[in-house]
Amino acid sequence: MAQVYDRVALIGLGLIASSMCHAMRRAGLAGEIVGYARSAETREIAREIGLCDIVCDSAAEAAKDADLVLLCVPVGAMESVAQEIGPVLKKGATVSDVGSVKRTVIDAVAPHIPQGVHFIPAHPLAGTEHSGPRSGFAELFDNRYTIIVPVAGSDPAAVAQLETFWRGMGALTDEMDADHHDLVLAVTSHTPHLIAYTMVGVADDLRRVTDSEVIKYSAAGFRDFTRIAASDPVMWRDVFLNNKEATLEILGRFTEELFALQRAIRQGDGDHLHDYFTRTRSIRRGIIEAGQDTDAPDFGRVKPRKE
Amino acid sequence: MAQVYDRVALIGLGLIASSMCHAMRRAGLAGEIVGYARSAETREIAREIGLCDIVCDSAAEAAKDADLVLLCVPVGAMESVAQEIGPVLKKGATVSDVGSVKRTVIDAVAPHIPQGVHFIPAHPLAGTEHSGPRSGFAELFDNRYTIIVPVAGSDPAAVAQLETFWRGMGALTDEMDADHHDLVLAVTSHTPHLIAYTMVGVADDLRRVTDSEVIKYSAAGFRDFTRIAASDPVMWRDVFLNNKEATLEILGRFTEELFALQRAIRQGDGDHLHDYFTRTRSIRRGIIEAGQDTDAPDFGRVKPRKE
Repeated sequence: MAQVYDRVALIGLGLIASSMCHAMRRAGLAGEIVGYARSAETREIAREIGLCDIVCDSAAEAAKDADLVLLCVPVGAMESVAQEIGPVLKKGATVSDVGSVKRTVIDAVAPHIPQGVHFIPAHPLAGTEHSGPRSGFAELFDNRYTIIVPVAGSDPAAVAQLETFWRGMGALTDEMDADHHDLVLAVTSHTPHLIAYTMVGVADDLRRVTDSEVIKYSAAGFRDFTRIAASDPVMWRDVFLNNKEATLEILGRFTEELFALQRAIRQGDGDHLHDYFTRTRSIRRGIIEAGQDTDAPDFGRVKPRKE
Repeated sequence: MAQVYDRVALIGLGLIASSMCHAMRRAGLAGEIVGYARSAETREIAREIGLCDIVCDSAAEAAKDADLVLLCVPVGAMESVAQEIGPVLKKGATVSDVGSVKRTVIDAVAPHIPQGVHFIPAHPLAGTEHSGPRSGFAELFDNRYTIIVPVAGSDPAAVAQLETFWRGMGALTDEMDADHHDLVLAVTSHTPHLIAYTMVGVADDLRRVTDSEVIKYSAAGFRDFTRIAASDPVMWRDVFLNNKEATLEILGRFTEELFALQRAIRQGDGDHLHDYFTRTRSIRRGIIEAGQDTDAPDFGRVKPRKE
């Protein structure tokens, strides 16, 4: 794979940005990788592990001569970063982001992007429960979708270049409108996360069922919820504050359905339960066929890697 | 590992029973394995793949000379099986089960167990989304808990023998009271399953968000829900009908907490969300430390096995 951008700047050095460093290097996509993180400790770790070629002490310094600037900060921090780097951006550069919500990020960032700079929002649908500069790995985006969300007036050549870059990191790409993206993600990610957080919170509250029992016996379903509910709290706070409408709509539908199932349990309506559970089974089959998961029966039983 | 029972009878030949066949053979725990399934097709498959030493055409025939009889049928089918095999059980034999609910199983089965036969309920906390006689594998119980639920008058020697048997199949064992078991499982398994079924049902209903989009973009959280929601519909129908009280209680707590988070989203209360999400993260750490999951960052990315 040939180089796609000469100088790439990462603003924010968490799980996504550090995985991008490894993935860019694996494929030789960037001439030089420059990084910045707000926390001095994060910058120190990034220097220590040689995450980027250069770690700068301000976002503006990192963005100044970059051909691609990637905003990899929580959604709520996008505006202040855009405000800081806007004045120094190079003509012809592309600014993109990796935020989980697109409409509010566009509204917050676009006004700070000067004429002659391409703003092309994006969202890689990949993650783990870990965060920070040490958590990245080159394979994170392999075979996962990155959704590109061009805005009015996005230059087709600049969009194509950004897609080439993401494909070079192993991702599949798709284009989508911002509002549609936010609704799809409310269904496939935001609401499931909120529900998982809630279920784990309920377990934690139960005094009669002690923590250690919940933990010991977690293999029976709860474990998958705790993995989801272990994701970065700041990132997820910002997701819900910034995708309020769609999340509340899906939550409303969820509660409606849950009440219907609860009523079936209370009334002993086995047919209702059986029909419902049969229908949901087929969706799973589709996901495996689409290559987005494995049906290996010992799934999840790999041994922890030695640190 | 030495032989623990001479003749073991499995009534029902689904995921759990077929995994037990493989796990018993791996460790040489049984002199002879006899099986029965209600469906002629399942019996045929079991014979074809050599799952047991003998596949019988009735539950009574399978149970007749067995030293350990394991009821591996959905919770709602336990009573009729117990009724059928009760009269033929050998004096000194042990009857156990693998049902996900214990109180109603005890109430349904105990009256049919004759004097001189040990009835010791149990529940292995292990499973996959697959079912049927072909879905079993020897490692299913490795390092997972099997909860033994002795009833009034259970013989300590017979209980110890059953625990040795489960440990021989790779499991960890613990003893618990039936009602406590049902409450713990309502938290760690039953309610999470109902919630996962509901979320997958909501996604399926959404016409604006097509199935294919939900499937393509499932990597962002929803995927874990679909795995849970793909479990056997009959088994789960019976779980909810038979653990009604505890499930409804935990569901009530869940809804209460969910509404509080929903309100925080509506009101833009970021602190509430952040505090909640921070608290749930620590539970996850406990599960990894307890060896019930892995924190490998590429978790879930193993390639599907070739069929």
